[in-house]
Amino acid sequence: MRGLPEFAIGAPQRRLEGGEKVQGRMDYVADVRIPGALSARLVTSPYPRARIERVDVEAALRVPGVLGVHTTRDIGSMGLLADGEVFFAGEAVAVVVAESARAAEDGAARVAVRYERRPALLDPRAALAPDALLARPVGARAERSDAGAHGAAVGGSAEQTGPNVCGQVAFSRGDIDEGLRLADHVVEGTYRIAGAYQGYLEPHGSVAVPTQGGVTVYTTTQGQFSVRAGVASALGLAEQQVKVVGMQIGGGFGAKFLKLEPLVARLALLYDQPVRIVLDRGQDFLLSTPGQMAEIELRLGARRDGSLTGIWARILLNAGAQPDETVGIAGLMLGSSYRVPHLDVKGYEVLTNTTPTGAYRAPGAPQAYFALESALDELARRLSMDPIELRLRSAAREGDPQAHGRPWPTIGFEEALEATRNHPLWKERRRGEDEGYGVAAGGWMGGTEPAAAACRINGDGSLTVQVGSNDITGTNTTFAAVAAEVFGLRPDEVRVVGSDTDTAPYAGAAGGSKTAFTVGAAVLQAAQDAREQLLAAAAGALEASAEDLEVADGRVFVRGAPTRAVAVSDLAAQTAAFGGRTAPFHGSGRTAIRRASPGFAVHVARVRVDRATGRIRPIGYLAVQDVGRALNPAMVEGQIRGGVAQSLGRALFEEMRHDAQGQLASASFLDYALPRANDVPDIAVQLVEVPSEHGPFGAKGVGEPPAVPGAAAVANAVCDAVGARVRELPMRPEAVLRAMRRD
Amino acid sequence: MRGLPEFAIGAPQRRLEGGEKVQGRMDYVADVRIPGALSARLVTSPYPRARIERVDVEAALRVPGVLGVHTTRDIGSMGLLADGEVFFAGEAVAVVVAESARAAEDGAARVAVRYERRPALLDPRAALAPDALLARPVGARAERSDAGAHGAAVGGSAEQTGPNVCGQVAFSRGDIDEGLRLADHVVEGTYRIAGAYQGYLEPHGSVAVPTQGGVTVYTTTQGQFSVRAGVASALGLAEQQVKVVGMQIGGGFGAKFLKLEPLVARLALLYDQPVRIVLDRGQDFLLSTPGQMAEIELRLGARRDGSLTGIWARILLNAGAQPDETVGIAGLMLGSSYRVPHLDVKGYEVLTNTTPTGAYRAPGAPQAYFALESALDELARRLSMDPIELRLRSAAREGDPQAHGRPWPTIGFEEALEATRNHPLWKERRRGEDEGYGVAAGGWMGGTEPAAAACRINGDGSLTVQVGSNDITGTNTTFAAVAAEVFGLRPDEVRVVGSDTDTAPYAGAAGGSKTAFTVGAAVLQAAQDAREQLLAAAAGALEASAEDLEVADGRVFVRGAPTRAVAVSDLAAQTAAFGGRTAPFHGSGRTAIRRASPGFAVHVARVRVDRATGRIRPIGYLAVQDVGRALNPAMVEGQIRGGVAQSLGRALFEEMRHDAQGQLASASFLDYALPRANDVPDIAVQLVEVPSEHGPFGAKGVGEPPAVPGAAAVANAVCDAVGARVRELPMRPEAVLRAMRRD
Repeated sequence: MRGLPEFAIGAPQRRLEGGEKVQGRMDYVADVRIPGALSARLVTSPYPRARIERVDVEAALRVPGVLGVHTTRDIGSMGLLADGEVFFAGEAVAVVVAESARAAEDGAARVAVRYERRPALLDPRAALAPDALLARPVGARAERSDAGAHGAAVGGSAEQTGPNVCGQVAFSRGDIDEGLRLADHVVEGTYRIAGAYQGYLEPHGSVAVPTQGGVTVYTTTQGQFSVRAGVASALGLAEQQVKVVGMQIGGGFGAKFLKLEPLVARLALLYDQPVRIVLDRGQDFLLSTPGQMAEIELRLGARRDGSLTGIWARILLNAGAQPDETVGIAGLMLGSSYRVPHLDVKGYEVLTNTTPTGAYRAPGAPQAYFALESALDELARRLSMDPIELRLRSAAREGDPQAHGRPWPTIGFEEALEATRNHPLWKERRRGEDEGYGVAAGGWMGGTEPAAAACRINGDGSLTVQVGSNDITGTNTTFAAVAAEVFGLRPDEVRVVGSDTDTAPYAGAAGGSKTAFTVGAAVLQAAQDAREQLLAAAAGALEASAEDLEVADGRVFVRGAPTRAVAVSDLAAQTAAFGGRTAPFHGSGRTAIRRASPGFAVHVARVRVDRATGRIRPIGYLAVQDVGRALNPAMVEGQIRGGVAQSLGRALFEEMRHDAQGQLASASFLDYALPRANDVPDIAVQLVEVPSEHGPFGAKGVGEPPAVPGAAAVANAVCDAVGARVRELPMRPEAVLRAMRRD
Repeated sequence: MRGLPEFAIGAPQRRLEGGEKVQGRMDYVADVRIPGALSARLVTSPYPRARIERVDVEAALRVPGVLGVHTTRDIGSMGLLADGEVFFAGEAVAVVVAESARAAEDGAARVAVRYERRPALLDPRAALAPDALLARPVGARAERSDAGAHGAAVGGSAEQTGPNVCGQVAFSRGDIDEGLRLADHVVEGTYRIAGAYQGYLEPHGSVAVPTQGGVTVYTTTQGQFSVRAGVASALGLAEQQVKVVGMQIGGGFGAKFLKLEPLVARLALLYDQPVRIVLDRGQDFLLSTPGQMAEIELRLGARRDGSLTGIWARILLNAGAQPDETVGIAGLMLGSSYRVPHLDVKGYEVLTNTTPTGAYRAPGAPQAYFALESALDELARRLSMDPIELRLRSAAREGDPQAHGRPWPTIGFEEALEATRNHPLWKERRRGEDEGYGVAAGGWMGGTEPAAAACRINGDGSLTVQVGSNDITGTNTTFAAVAAEVFGLRPDEVRVVGSDTDTAPYAGAAGGSKTAFTVGAAVLQAAQDAREQLLAAAAGALEASAEDLEVADGRVFVRGAPTRAVAVSDLAAQTAAFGGRTAPFHGSGRTAIRRASPGFAVHVARVRVDRATGRIRPIGYLAVQDVGRALNPAMVEGQIRGGVAQSLGRALFEEMRHDAQGQLASASFLDYALPRANDVPDIAVQLVEVPSEHGPFGAKGVGEPPAVPGAAAVANAVCDAVGARVRELPMRPEAVLRAMRRD
């Protein structure tokens, strides 16, 4: 490898596909128009809990164009259709297949389902009781692991296992009573965090086409290979019989895993015709898997000097109507970020008859850090200590034990805190009237998954990189930079091909902040492999040793003697000609990084609070993050700004709200408030680079950390501005007013 | 590798895609229907030689739906459009672009081209004269190398370089006058072989779609990567900007190389819309590149004992209106197949104003062997010697010098002759009235080209092989058997993915009998690589050394202890799971075989001749061929039967005939007679296996040899039946009657 300074890595690059996107030339799954494709439409339950007594399809079948109505009885659940009983309002009960989307919609409206309503369990705290109503029978709990795919190692187990508890976690160290007794100050509070919808632009949709002995599925997904595995498994096929084409994706944020694909694939095989389903926004709200509503009780003890003596926490997550395992991540992050001698963290996740939840960008972490970082801020105030200084006293460092006892690998938490402290936006903070500053930190463990990649030198010397990851954040542009770096080219001279599961090298789902980290490492290895093949061929042509050769600008030359050179295109021509005497230059990368590289972010929010209305207005923002190495700073900063915007949404506006009858009351963008452009202030970004030992060029995952600390930063700023501690999300004006009256 | 007996290799396999083909579910290029695609239609010249004075487009542009008419002037030649002057009847002069195929056709009919006719050179013998009319100015000779892509090493150069000579060859050894003087018998004759159309089912067609910064081309081709190179070069793009999707192909036989692709790609970029062109059969006849008409003078001397003393030959090939280099192959084959002390072979290929020629299955060889093997038969009769015995006296063996002096590698010519001699169809031959048997041999040098392939074990343990070759003969089925053999699976358990140039590993064009030979070797290497990765992972799981492991039926087990086993699917699951600890099993194969493995065929025809009409009726046939190793005997035999059928067509019916005005008089299947099913007798096939040192499992190319000896075998059988020597192809009844009267 060439030494520093690198000219492709670390330089800001435009997204390769940006032009096509802004010109509207990209094909999303809704653009897949296959002549003769049938349309499918789901029939959903209006009740949170009911037995399905009868599905009357006569009226639906009379709608012209309607071809059939299917339920679990004839096509199986396919992971989507209710099996005799519904457990949340919006659960799919039947699917109508018709010759057109309109006919399918008309048909769905005419499917008459007779329900026997049953009592529903809506309150997660009530769900915890040993004698609680069962949200769903034990046997009807499907296995799910979306959250797991986002990446925390989870350990421990709490003792309380009520009938609705679907996930739990327990970590302890020392003696918590002792820990809190030793404290000069103990802060204590209960934090409530609303469930939040991922709010992507593009709703779920899939198109399936029957093939000889199998099926091809076009879909909007974060992980085409896991969709392939899921479809194959649901249909009893081998993976090689299923081809998944991950289309351009209009946002995922953790929600675009296996969803509609098994169902449309099943229907396509049933009808032996292509079948298409695209959810409208209302159904997408009902069927997506939002981030979990949480309630966290927290006690934090510290000595006068700011050193922490104990952390006690009880975490309750509402999984909704399907099992979920996010609480482990929440507990781990809460118990690991600061050095503390005494620790007692327990968490429970419960089933209720509300919208099933899943992964939403750093699942569990925004909830955990909202509590933890609010409490730390309270502690700093109590100690009259600089909040960054307080954090620096105990911030986890490499080698410190995590909650489960295993040591932290290289992390840049301290470095991010130091960079924040030195940033002018913090250092030179100036409060206007009713204004305040808040600081908060947050981390993310990061995920790992085996990955492969290929790098080919074409017959004219041009370079093609092949990956199987779905590009949701501009990772392909990053991969171009990685390969360009190895070959001394500009990133726009590298073509990155991300193709379907039939033709692309394996990559895990784009989730868990691991695509650049793991697939990028495979790309680096593939490019280096191709480079070695090239240099071996050049060594013969130049009568030099391969170790003495260098490549840049389309030429291979002898180091120190740049005129002894051969064009890459001349060498490549020999690999792609009749009678050619050199094997094709096809580099191969195969990696299985076994250790994650966690990332930490520190955010500073500046807000103004309207004392009369309680309305919070963010007026400044700083996001500092350890990214290991910014492969493409433009994109890293973009990721960070996006994460901040989502944080502000969860801080101020967003809530998946169920009414007293268990209906989702926020199933449209009229009722579910996303932040608008004018709700988001300018965001200053500062990158810290503490290199990972595993990621390409030292890179760490960057997608999730920026979505973590925002809410606490805003809450702390509100307290700084008006002295009121708000412990619930979203921080609606009435909550602020309530807190101002209380504090 | 496992030892013999192998259970996938060598066992007959059905074509993997056969079912889809017979059900009509395969998509050919004409099935690529892209909404909004424009249609293009060529305007062709009625004259063999003329200056284009003016192209009047007004009337065409008035046709509703016609969008434009283009010539070389505005879009360049794109390797297709005439540049100011036409050199053959049927040459494209302009292209009409319209919203529909109908409008394009109407528009093309209304393009008024004013020509200034010029004298045309039609006779290839006249073209040879030093003072001949120039068929085309020297500067207007485009480079072409389709024939080269079919595979002979060509050497030598003849002295005669008239202005129309575009290719030549000369080989000599010893003193030919001495050689013929030493002979006890000299046979002498002039052989005329008609030009022949490849006669594939599917005419040429291509669809181009503009992309961001490039173009995607769907086409019917034998070599998508060479099409990519050609389109990129014509359009001034990098290869990575061009994606070529080789569709299912309805026959190629040497004619489906670069053709319409640069033109449609250019038009797609010009209009920024998809453009489609599919030739009708008439235009396909005019624009395809048939096999060359040839005239061969031959003298063959031998001693009484049958040993050859000298071969003298003069070969004239009519290249038509574009340069071609097939004569080198013809000369090499003619001068290399038998040991002879004195040799003088010269060949010339000339330009004329007739249909440009190109590669047609074993280009040059059917012509050369028709002469050589007819003459040998004549010699055998003169010597009253068994014709196989005569051949065995001199048949080339490993180490014998070829015409250019380099030694033959391992070949199975003698073995094929011996097998023929021992075959009951020859040994027990029984002549009915007016019936005869003829034997003839033929060889093919075989081609080489670098190739790559990939072999992946999917997350459930299923196997996928990836190749970039266009499957025209069932090669994908063969590749499945190769990988299956390595993994102890059934071929139908292996998925073979042949994809586009963006995603597939490099492979040369399917021509030159080299796909199974070269790409197959890459597949074998890729499968072995994947197997090694699998065994390395299994070694850890089984606590055994990888060398002691074996794989079969989806399990890896310790050799000799089959219960110490682990499922491939269990190992694979670790490569495709969040947090998985094993790198994906992605085998890679990259080969550059540098030595070809020539193949020889010996055919026996049994015919009945109607003495009254001269009509020849083949009533029996034996095809013996050294194939090195029959990877899939079912397909090898299919290839051989197809080759025989084409041979019989050229022997009896087919002729690309130009009239006195230079018009192609045989531009439809009414005027160009292909053999029908009832013209082809039962064909017995016997495979001989003299293993190649280079091909996978010893395989050699098998596609071309079976198309070589047929015509001479039939001619020799006719002579055996009625004593008449026919020295022209096709052997029409009148030619037979003429020969009967003469001999």
